Amino acid sequence: VSGIIPPLSTPLTDDHDVDVVSLRQLVDFLVDAGVHGVFALGSTSEDPYLTDAQRVTVLTTAVAAVDGRVPVFAGTMATTAARAIERVAQAESAGADYVVVSPPFYALAGEEEIESHYRLVHEKSRLPVIAYDIPSRTGVKLSAPLLGRLARDGVVVGAKDSSGDIKSLRALVAETADVPGFAAMMGSEVLTDLALFSGAAGAVPGLANVDPHGYVRLHSAAVAGDWDAVRAEQRRLTRLFDIIVLGRSHGLGVDAAAYGAFKEALRRRGVIARAHTVPPQTPLPAVVRDQVGAALVEAGLVGAGLQ
Amino acid sequence: VSGIIPPLSTPLTDDHDVDVVSLRQLVDFLVDAGVHGVFALGSTSEDPYLTDAQRVTVLTTAVAAVDGRVPVFAGTMATTAARAIERVAQAESAGADYVVVSPPFYALAGEEEIESHYRLVHEKSRLPVIAYDIPSRTGVKLSAPLLGRLARDGVVVGAKDSSGDIKSLRALVAETADVPGFAAMMGSEVLTDLALFSGAAGAVPGLANVDPHGYVRLHSAAVAGDWDAVRAEQRRLTRLFDIIVLGRSHGLGVDAAAYGAFKEALRRRGVIARAHTVPPQTPLPAVVRDQVGAALVEAGLVGAGLQ
Amino acid sequence: VSGIIPPLSTPLTDDHDVDVVSLRQLVDFLVDAGVHGVFALGSTSEDPYLTDAQRVTVLTTAVAAVDGRVPVFAGTMATTAARAIERVAQAESAGADYVVVSPPFYALAGEEEIESHYRLVHEKSRLPVIAYDIPSRTGVKLSAPLLGRLARDGVVVGAKDSSGDIKSLRALVAETADVPGFAAMMGSEVLTDLALFSGAAGAVPGLANVDPHGYVRLHSAAVAGDWDAVRAEQRRLTRLFDIIVLGRSHGLGVDAAAYGAFKEALRRRGVIARAHTVPPQTPLPAVVRDQVGAALVEAGLVGAGLQ
Amino acid sequence: VSGIIPPLSTPLTDDHDVDVVSLRQLVDFLVDAGVHGVFALGSTSEDPYLTDAQRVTVLTTAVAAVDGRVPVFAGTMATTAARAIERVAQAESAGADYVVVSPPFYALAGEEEIESHYRLVHEKSRLPVIAYDIPSRTGVKLSAPLLGRLARDGVVVGAKDSSGDIKSLRALVAETADVPGFAAMMGSEVLTDLALFSGAAGAVPGLANVDPHGYVRLHSAAVAGDWDAVRAEQRRLTRLFDIIVLGRSHGLGVDAAAYGAFKEALRRRGVIARAHTVPPQTPLPAVVRDQVGAALVEAGLVGAGLQ
Repeated sequence: VSGIIPPLSTPLTDDHDVDVVSLRQLVDFLVDAGVHGVFALGSTSEDPYLTDAQRVTVLTTAVAAVDGRVPVFAGTMATTAARAIERVAQAESAGADYVVVSPPFYALAGEEEIESHYRLVHEKSRLPVIAYDIPSRTGVKLSAPLLGRLARDGVVVGAKDSSGDIKSLRALVAETADVPGFAAMMGSEVLTDLALFSGAAGAVPGLANVDPHGYVRLHSAAVAGDWDAVRAEQRRLTRLFDIIVLGRSHGLGVDAAAYGAFKEALRRRGVIARAHTVPPQTPLPAVVRDQVGAALVEAGLVGAGLQ
Repeated sequence: VSGIIPPLSTPLTDDHDVDVVSLRQLVDFLVDAGVHGVFALGSTSEDPYLTDAQRVTVLTTAVAAVDGRVPVFAGTMATTAARAIERVAQAESAGADYVVVSPPFYALAGEEEIESHYRLVHEKSRLPVIAYDIPSRTGVKLSAPLLGRLARDGVVVGAKDSSGDIKSLRALVAETADVPGFAAMMGSEVLTDLALFSGAAGAVPGLANVDPHGYVRLHSAAVAGDWDAVRAEQRRLTRLFDIIVLGRSHGLGVDAAAYGAFKEALRRRGVIARAHTVPPQTPLPAVVRDQVGAALVEAGLVGAGLQ
Repeated sequence: VSGIIPPLSTPLTDDHDVDVVSLRQLVDFLVDAGVHGVFALGSTSEDPYLTDAQRVTVLTTAVAAVDGRVPVFAGTMATTAARAIERVAQAESAGADYVVVSPPFYALAGEEEIESHYRLVHEKSRLPVIAYDIPSRTGVKLSAPLLGRLARDGVVVGAKDSSGDIKSLRALVAETADVPGFAAMMGSEVLTDLALFSGAAGAVPGLANVDPHGYVRLHSAAVAGDWDAVRAEQRRLTRLFDIIVLGRSHGLGVDAAAYGAFKEALRRRGVIARAHTVPPQTPLPAVVRDQVGAALVEAGLVGAGLQ
Repeated sequence: VSGIIPPLSTPLTDDHDVDVVSLRQLVDFLVDAGVHGVFALGSTSEDPYLTDAQRVTVLTTAVAAVDGRVPVFAGTMATTAARAIERVAQAESAGADYVVVSPPFYALAGEEEIESHYRLVHEKSRLPVIAYDIPSRTGVKLSAPLLGRLARDGVVVGAKDSSGDIKSLRALVAETADVPGFAAMMGSEVLTDLALFSGAAGAVPGLANVDPHGYVRLHSAAVAGDWDAVRAEQRRLTRLFDIIVLGRSHGLGVDAAAYGAFKEALRRRGVIARAHTVPPQTPLPAVVRDQVGAALVEAGLVGAGLQ
């Protein structure tokens, strides 16, 4: 597990169902750009807004579209172990290569119980498990010592750190330095350069839906030790990432503003057909859609005449 | 909607499945004690730990056991509207009288989107909706103005305030004073007296599984304006409520410590057969089980020789 | 220590110095209204905005104006013990009856060190010490067990709980039930009724600058056990308290909005000459000043033609 | 303003007064090691624990000891502008070169008022002002746009970012890219490498009291673009920095554990005579003092026989 692994956006039809054709196009766009894996049913997929049936559609579509070219990671986010295990089984049936497992949420578990949670899920999973650390959604932080124990026991083969705190990722890298093959992955779009500088195996940036080539270039430059190139690429991507907050000043929530912006950008780049998000997310207002277009031009992703 | 409405605990078998016999006994114990309703699949039920199949078992068992003697409220907690709507339909089929609906969680929604969430669920529900405000689990607070708008439009007929902040409940009472029949319900075990003093319609205390008679007495005294009796009863119940933190110093999480203590108390009172909680919750250690027993004696609920 | 003890506002001249004449008038207004003490140099005094010289002026003026009619409490808020001890000495010289001492702030102390802090200050103080629990400003919460230890050892004779959480005040009352004469005081304007219902000795409400008669009536009704009167009075005062947030939507900070509103109300009631607050606090805009006037009319404090 | 600028520790005598001799030795140790400035009366100095008289002693001693070899930065932390201005005047008299100014604390100010605070202090200061952003102590965050406005207007010539969030430092660098000479300084010991990688002018690490040579080497390597050396040096320093938490598991607060460890290390390195911290900080227990010694050996700072 390494490199750039975008968490797939979920394109929708006008009826707010999964747009299978656009999803296939998105997978091809990313794989053709050189990404090293794709992550279906992450937060960027609007997973918590999808029904179980839609989740299965997304996953089977993604696996089929990838067609073995890169590994497929399947999100299984669920409040606790019993439900996560059901989703792991779906991921196995669908042909995923890895499962990504969050700690308990809505439930209020202690650290010992979070550890049991991962051990229970691992026992029932035929696929290798990646831990998903995203405290802004789950309300808990997976500590480096906890992940270290799970890593050394083979319970998890990697972790995605979406805490937004580079110190957390660095502690994880230090803690797992002696675990062969363990993958410390960065979940933050704007810290990818620093994560690679700090020894992370790769990154899972939602923005890589919009600009996979940029993140792949950034990763290649880091592998080559060309830190000036890494920094320049990150600077451009960080500016582009500002699109995710544009909707906030119009009353949109965090999800609606971010996922709406990614989809509007993908639509303008011609990758997907429509920019809808799942209700009750508020759609991006027209003025924000145009700001997204302008940001794409500034980032060099769309010709000024074509946005 | 008013009075004391306990959120049902979910008794388990040794295989960690729903213990239907004990659940029926619990319902009878509560209804015989004079409670004014029962709430199935609230947090106290360990709902986030149950599978969908177990949830249906709990709900149908509760409805059958209640047998029309008091209204049944059904929890439908789900990350967003699409999933909540599926659970509302289950509640309708099972014969519940009300559905209790949380705001989005894991998802990150803005206030406008939370409002849309409730309107979407209400549109699809044949049962009246109670809003469930529990920021410690969902990460969001339902503001009084938001609940006021939903109440005035008939979207919700009540709200359970589990924020633990009496100012929040008071703001809700003030905001909905002009909405006939709206029920502001207190979710905190230790603020029930102050909530009734402040004009709440009733309370939904998890501890009422253990001592329904105490909460019913407290409510009756409040209705009668006998505030000295209210205070004395609350003081006794507040002391008893300390059982929920005993497990914390042994490494148990918030849920495991609380729900384990409720179940141990119910077992010692002879209401349910076993005190298991759903994994990955850590079981109460023996020393804590004995402390729960001693607290029951101190609260006058079990004779010293019988605990 | 009991009853209603308003934390004195600090009236200012046009040069932003202490308006000694207005301060004397304020003290007379409060004492004539029947308050049971006055607290100089609390947060409401804009203490952190005053120079050391101004603090001394405030304190000596207040002591002289009170002239022994009620006890005077002196704030000594300082980052740690060495500085607090200097302020305690000033309070002694000025003739105060009690000192009110915050825990360390800006400094980051552990609970053991907070306890040492109070013991160090107590050792050097000839005046009895009241602990000041105001986590929104200090970043720490004084736990009930900590205050209980200090109370039982005679280090503190009371505590002002400005946490805004009635559960905290109740825990303090329970913890100190066996300490004769210990005074658990409520710092929140809107929870005074519930605090007295719960066994608090009294309250220290900033709003009592504006409406001392209301708080004194509320206290008397509570002493008489007339809870309907208590509730009605609190409801009126809670509505009036909304004046403290009016400035927030105009960009004012918490202090500027609250203390500006108190002063504008006092000016309109004819108690003080001007409504200035200490820079860098932004003055209340004219529209807010008029809203404060309207709130006074609604609260029955100013005739509609006289506001 | 650039390079490594340690915030001076304050050595104490057995009477807990300023140990002027040790303080001079510390200044010489740092300047000889090649630091680019020294910062007196920062948090690391235990400033909030010192009396005003002690503060003046520290500052005049530091200025005299530095004797013009590098610039001296003087902390002026105070709850609001009036008090900060008094401290700025003391810093001018003492011969400091820059003043470091925190936002209001204990006071609750809005962003507009924080901006006014800095403008008021700047107006009265003959020395250039550095903003001090340390939300863990002040409870507020200085936003990049706010600091950008102050920088462009010449109100501040730099900022020390002690938020511990590299994204914050990066936003500051981006916001002030067009302000000639503005110095974005990193306050975190463990993010110095990433800060320099990200375009910061330098760092103000408390740990540089203990290992100034290490931080100077790190800075030189960054200037030379030798990122492998930067990373290796940071890794060693980050491990050494673990000494600041050793005391926490013995009940010490954040300050006591950190400043006690710095002083114990300086004492073992022979730079200062004693390791006392100002009461009510709890002294480091003997076992922790030995752990500090072992960490120095591991970091290569003290021979195993000499610790």
